[in-house]
Amino acid sequence: MRLSQYFLPTLKENPTEAQIVSHRLMLRAGLVRQTSAGIYAWLPMGYRVLRKIEQIVREGQDEAGAQEVLMPTIQPAELWQQSGRYEVYGKEMLRIKDRHEREMLYGPTNEEMITDIFRTSVKTYRDVPKNLYHIQWKFRDEVRPRFGVMRGREFLMKDAYSFDLTKEGARISYQKMFLSYLRIFARMGLQAIPMQADTGPIGGDMSHEFIILAETGESGVFCHPDWIKTDPLKEPVGYNDDLNPFFEKYTSLYAATDEKHKPGAAGIPDSELLQARGIEVGHIFYFGTKYSQPLGAKVTGPNGDLITLEMGSYGIGVSRLVGAIIEACHDEAGIIWPEAVAPYKVGLLNLKANDAAATKICDEIYTMLQQAGVEVLYDDRDERAGTKFADCDLVGLPWQIIGGRGLDKGMVELKNRKSGERTEISIEDALNKVIGK
Amino acid sequence: MRLSQYFLPTLKENPTEAQIVSHRLMLRAGLVRQTSAGIYAWLPMGYRVLRKIEQIVREGQDEAGAQEVLMPTIQPAELWQQSGRYEVYGKEMLRIKDRHEREMLYGPTNEEMITDIFRTSVKTYRDVPKNLYHIQWKFRDEVRPRFGVMRGREFLMKDAYSFDLTKEGARISYQKMFLSYLRIFARMGLQAIPMQADTGPIGGDMSHEFIILAETGESGVFCHPDWIKTDPLKEPVGYNDDLNPFFEKYTSLYAATDEKHKPGAAGIPDSELLQARGIEVGHIFYFGTKYSQPLGAKVTGPNGDLITLEMGSYGIGVSRLVGAIIEACHDEAGIIWPEAVAPYKVGLLNLKANDAAATKICDEIYTMLQQAGVEVLYDDRDERAGTKFADCDLVGLPWQIIGGRGLDKGMVELKNRKSGERTEISIEDALNKVIGK
Repeated sequence: MRLSQYFLPTLKENPTEAQIVSHRLMLRAGLVRQTSAGIYAWLPMGYRVLRKIEQIVREGQDEAGAQEVLMPTIQPAELWQQSGRYEVYGKEMLRIKDRHEREMLYGPTNEEMITDIFRTSVKTYRDVPKNLYHIQWKFRDEVRPRFGVMRGREFLMKDAYSFDLTKEGARISYQKMFLSYLRIFARMGLQAIPMQADTGPIGGDMSHEFIILAETGESGVFCHPDWIKTDPLKEPVGYNDDLNPFFEKYTSLYAATDEKHKPGAAGIPDSELLQARGIEVGHIFYFGTKYSQPLGAKVTGPNGDLITLEMGSYGIGVSRLVGAIIEACHDEAGIIWPEAVAPYKVGLLNLKANDAAATKICDEIYTMLQQAGVEVLYDDRDERAGTKFADCDLVGLPWQIIGGRGLDKGMVELKNRKSGERTEISIEDALNKVIGK
Repeated sequence: MRLSQYFLPTLKENPTEAQIVSHRLMLRAGLVRQTSAGIYAWLPMGYRVLRKIEQIVREGQDEAGAQEVLMPTIQPAELWQQSGRYEVYGKEMLRIKDRHEREMLYGPTNEEMITDIFRTSVKTYRDVPKNLYHIQWKFRDEVRPRFGVMRGREFLMKDAYSFDLTKEGARISYQKMFLSYLRIFARMGLQAIPMQADTGPIGGDMSHEFIILAETGESGVFCHPDWIKTDPLKEPVGYNDDLNPFFEKYTSLYAATDEKHKPGAAGIPDSELLQARGIEVGHIFYFGTKYSQPLGAKVTGPNGDLITLEMGSYGIGVSRLVGAIIEACHDEAGIIWPEAVAPYKVGLLNLKANDAAATKICDEIYTMLQQAGVEVLYDDRDERAGTKFADCDLVGLPWQIIGGRGLDKGMVELKNRKSGERTEISIEDALNKVIGK
């Protein structure tokens, strides 16, 4: 994409309404625009990031055997009256009356609806287990929306729902999602740590929050130092294997938010614990028959008896992740995208846009990168070098190819945004380096 | 995907609430489930089709130079008060009050919002032309929603908006979308015919509906027989070329809905006109300064003067297309998906699921198809052959590989869903045929 033609309205100044760094940087880098309190439009570069995150989540859920559906945003109130949550939910639920005065609502989550779809579609034990997920916009009418997309009112969530015949089956479904989540976050370049969360009246060990570490995170966390050594992508385990050893390993290492932290409970001296800050990006939950019971989601078992299904739900804050990743990955100059979610892999800066010979060479580099399938943002604008450097650092592409004085000798500078390292190398070497990666 | 594990709740009987064939077949084939009047959940197979259509639309818009954004579903009422449409829109607009009693609405379209985003982001003539599009769910509170996804309340639309400095520029933007639309529909395997539509007070020739032909279509159409010979994918024209000759060619061939048809106006005898039925799937529109004027979307021109932007909008009914394609492509037995939008390219039927040797061969065919990157739905269920044939015809995959008595001699039947042609061939030939296509 040529920057001269791109819709990328960056801001020079820090917007005063933004209290946290990700919100500031998303507005400054032209990723989003607020359209109402807590509601955002995603501009081209921001939407590219959102879609990359969404796709990593999708692939991670698919390979764990979950199947993608799409439920609508607008739901009938009756379903929530059946589950008993219609009143409980309070003012965070956006309630709507349609033209026939029917009570509707903008879904904040989908337990009721998926249970309803399932109960009318599935009849026998042979149809389970199943795990259905969707990636859909939700609405929670926060009283004071803030922190940009980290706590917006309209937000994109991936929510999966598992249906099993037995508690043991539900445990396997839960463990699959546990593994899937760790791999999904790792693929985004994030270290996510599962922390045991409240299970409510059900009890047990089947509720976890997934928290990524970020200096600017919303809550304090205490972790065993061995977490640093874990790598879920290198665990030799498949979704059809016995997941108990894996689950055991990743739940026995101590990790707790400051709310949950119990001094002395870590198994090692508290002084050896890693103290950090973190951001919640996912939450998984086993809740048994909480919805299947009132909504009547049952199947006939092998002996003809009716069995109420065991369920769990599994959420990832997809739009929240865009902000969370920036909280974890930025510096004074701007965003530092992990490569897997970067809107473009390479920024190509033509510092001599007024020079026909230099521009011809930059145009050729641009064409070669495109032909090699490398996503590249080409700063072909007639702007000062300082502006180009600042904008490219701000938007945080992993690599910068800087074409300046050396161009006529076939040389460019290659800069790594994360390390800051700059090397003067030949065009050919620069291309090989970013294409090969 | 193995059908034994797939969430595909097909129906044996025709649902009584469905009045048109696409609605009936979508419910019967397990593509969607109604969750409220005119509101649908997309089940795994239906959602695959929806996403394929969406992706063809996206790629077609991208190559025409449009840039993708995503605007939220919930909009503030003020924007619509500024444009004057808040009252005009009537009861089809879903109006909402949030917890602070602010007037909001579920967007039925986005002219106001995109104009607002544009006016606050863009300052000078150098920032135009631009064309921004999004693919987002909309809501229109139809008084009597019917015909399934063809006229739902919550529906997925692609809407693009162009911004130009001059009328001449707006004409070029319009022609680019005109070409893009013809190519998008052709890639879906559809013949779409642009028909001049009302331009309202602006006048001129810059409003077209795109109508695909279907025997069960909602409106009658009259077309020049030469339309059959046109192929927008074979027109040697690019988006940066002069599009006037192409536009001239495709707008001079007569085509009109029965509402618009004027006897004797076709340039050939009316008796030679093709009389058919059709379904509207897209609409493009130039509307000048209708929104930029009241919302103040202006840029400074080369001479420092303020110029009000010239705009157009361009819509495709993405979820409607799923129904429209079925209306155009079905027979007594079920859906006949064009290959480009088929949820899976091949159905693999194991007619001897109880026979270990036969099953081993079918499993191998399944693995080979997957390894070759062919999307395959594998009917591995323990069901009668008749059920498998009926289900596979119903869901309408382009190819069927039927493994039955011939399996032990290395033979299968290959069936083309559209032509109905069945040939007994070797497994190797069958694989080559469906992989090579």
